[in-house]
Amino acid sequence: MPNPAPDPSKGLIEQLDLAPLRKGPLDGLEFTVKDNIDLAGCRTSYGSPAWRDAQPAAVHNALCVDQLLGAGARCVGKVVADEFTYSLDGESVHFGTPRNAKAPDRVPGGSSSGSAASVGNGLADFSLCTDAGGSIRVPASLCGLWGMRPSLHRISEAGVLPFQPSVSTVGVLADRFDVLDAAMRALLNGPASPTPSPRRILVLQDALEIADSVVQDQVGCALDRIAENTGVAVEPVRFSEIVGAQRELEACNLEGLRDLQTAEFQSTVGNWIEACKPELGFTFSMAYGNVRKFDRAAALDNIARCERFFRQINAFFAADTVICFPTTPKIAPLKGSLNTLEAVMDFYDPTMTITAFSGVARLPEISAPLLTVEGCPVGLSFAAGHYQDEFLLNAVRELVG
Amino acid sequence: MPNPAPDPSKGLIEQLDLAPLRKGPLDGLEFTVKDNIDLAGCRTSYGSPAWRDAQPAAVHNALCVDQLLGAGARCVGKVVADEFTYSLDGESVHFGTPRNAKAPDRVPGGSSSGSAASVGNGLADFSLCTDAGGSIRVPASLCGLWGMRPSLHRISEAGVLPFQPSVSTVGVLADRFDVLDAAMRALLNGPASPTPSPRRILVLQDALEIADSVVQDQVGCALDRIAENTGVAVEPVRFSEIVGAQRELEACNLEGLRDLQTAEFQSTVGNWIEACKPELGFTFSMAYGNVRKFDRAAALDNIARCERFFRQINAFFAADTVICFPTTPKIAPLKGSLNTLEAVMDFYDPTMTITAFSGVARLPEISAPLLTVEGCPVGLSFAAGHYQDEFLLNAVRELVG
Repeated sequence: MPNPAPDPSKGLIEQLDLAPLRKGPLDGLEFTVKDNIDLAGCRTSYGSPAWRDAQPAAVHNALCVDQLLGAGARCVGKVVADEFTYSLDGESVHFGTPRNAKAPDRVPGGSSSGSAASVGNGLADFSLCTDAGGSIRVPASLCGLWGMRPSLHRISEAGVLPFQPSVSTVGVLADRFDVLDAAMRALLNGPASPTPSPRRILVLQDALEIADSVVQDQVGCALDRIAENTGVAVEPVRFSEIVGAQRELEACNLEGLRDLQTAEFQSTVGNWIEACKPELGFTFSMAYGNVRKFDRAAALDNIARCERFFRQINAFFAADTVICFPTTPKIAPLKGSLNTLEAVMDFYDPTMTITAFSGVARLPEISAPLLTVEGCPVGLSFAAGHYQDEFLLNAVRELVG
Repeated sequence: MPNPAPDPSKGLIEQLDLAPLRKGPLDGLEFTVKDNIDLAGCRTSYGSPAWRDAQPAAVHNALCVDQLLGAGARCVGKVVADEFTYSLDGESVHFGTPRNAKAPDRVPGGSSSGSAASVGNGLADFSLCTDAGGSIRVPASLCGLWGMRPSLHRISEAGVLPFQPSVSTVGVLADRFDVLDAAMRALLNGPASPTPSPRRILVLQDALEIADSVVQDQVGCALDRIAENTGVAVEPVRFSEIVGAQRELEACNLEGLRDLQTAEFQSTVGNWIEACKPELGFTFSMAYGNVRKFDRAAALDNIARCERFFRQINAFFAADTVICFPTTPKIAPLKGSLNTLEAVMDFYDPTMTITAFSGVARLPEISAPLLTVEGCPVGLSFAAGHYQDEFLLNAVRELVG
């Protein structure tokens, strides 16, 4: 029987049916794979038809795909990524914008837009995807899903297209916490030993203040409920207390991650674009214009600053502490509304200020679908120390799972 | 003035003269770059003429190259790598075997063979290169140079060809400790704060026992001198004490790293070879035969074991402790002698048993050119905990710098 045509509203590029390699904790679960992760027999597009057509088909699945198949899950399709995964909004001129199931007139968020749509629209239980600047967390927030970006480099990137090596991670979007938890554990392969119970939630005030006031209110309500249900202490914390200096949260992005990400992107995708001059989508070509003219010497001091933020932020974490903040400062923009520089900046700047916190500190972060603002979803994020992924999963289960 | 022809005995592929981007701690130092690291305007060969010819020239330098130019160093050339960097012996059918300056009738070690030859033969003060299974440490040992493999993922791999993402690192070979130290610090960008003085050297008995008895004797003499000069305690330790279980050192490689490396190599280079059917050198095509028939499902349990070894070994390290062992168990094999399966196994198996220790535990390791056996060099390695690169540099300076 021929496959039915892929459904772009669900983010599908190609329907597949890859059976589990063996039985395991993911028995009965179905997943999709973002199209920057190799699937044997498919050309990996990186969200770009030009890239796809210039590369041979993959012969092997990415190792993370095999890990999931080896844990009992079944792969049901390859799904849309934003062009070169270099976007947080999820509007794709090349493959159609995947549908935000809980806010259909709004963007799904990106770059794991197809991952979010495939899960949100019932095609799969979870999706294997990637996050550097927020590509799992932002669609999780805007589509009302569970999403986890693990600690930097906890999960093998063999067979995942190189993007921003100092920031990129492989993670999961899912519709239920139990599914997120099981899929992430199959990828993390960490110790099963008990972790401390969470005793303190520190609410990152800088991130809260960037958020819309209606989002702030909902964060407050959600934390009140958590405190009441669990008895865990909820306390404010400022970024300056975390790093022990008069610094603003914006520094993580503006003085650290942003320029490092641009320089790394020049070295991965940029080299290829400059050499091959492929056709680019309009939105990406705008963004790439800034990459192209970026003087990478300007990024050299950022490497040292990122290293410093990493150490300062991780030195602050206690073993029983999570840091909490709204995943994104706003609900999803309306589709087609990001058509002026002002609208783009208004979406990207405050979002990346928040997402850069876990990025620069290499933290695991889980976005929980706990907030509803004007009928649309927003995520509440919890972050723990670098490599404390198992503690974070256990803590989020106790708090809100 | 046209460039003189490259000198293959010094590992040169292309003479270059890239001026420093600015003044810095590496003023006056000259370096070469292994040919799996992008240099703007050059085709990066990965040690394979077929790969080189299939790729466009790089437009940007790898970020690690820019870091060195930005710290005051000058780049004087691109140097030979073993084919796909998938070797530890340094014999190249494609580019000529670079000369081992201190043992000219013997192999230089690989895969950073040209890096070692360019430094050993006086072409450069240091070389920027890479190490997954031992590609910096082995040539350092066999050529009598200083070499450092940093903690996994401490240095950006943007612009470095993807190899084995869970094991690959960027590091340095140098002729003097001061140069190694300065170059590594420019790449690491770590804190300048003081670190504890080393109080204990734990000598890894399992590695010592694998080494030739003449190497064992020299290790003993070197450690006696260090103890006498510094007063630091030198004590034996067994792998089973480190991991708290009746395990042998071999497990790091045989049950952990080896199959994971094979599966990751399938996903990076293997996909390309299967799709493009390039011409391969004889030695590599032998090795690749094993990669090709490897069942990657067999590697899935290795990921969990590697994660466990990583945690166990790092939990063992105290802040004032280094672990010491011969970098390689033997001196360099004679050129042309690795022409039987037995000879190949005799070189690779014990070598990889030792190199897999730091590999699986993601440790920083420095190979110091302290031993001479039958007139040939062998390195003495010092390893510290994951991310303790600055402590390791300071400790090695105090002990033997």
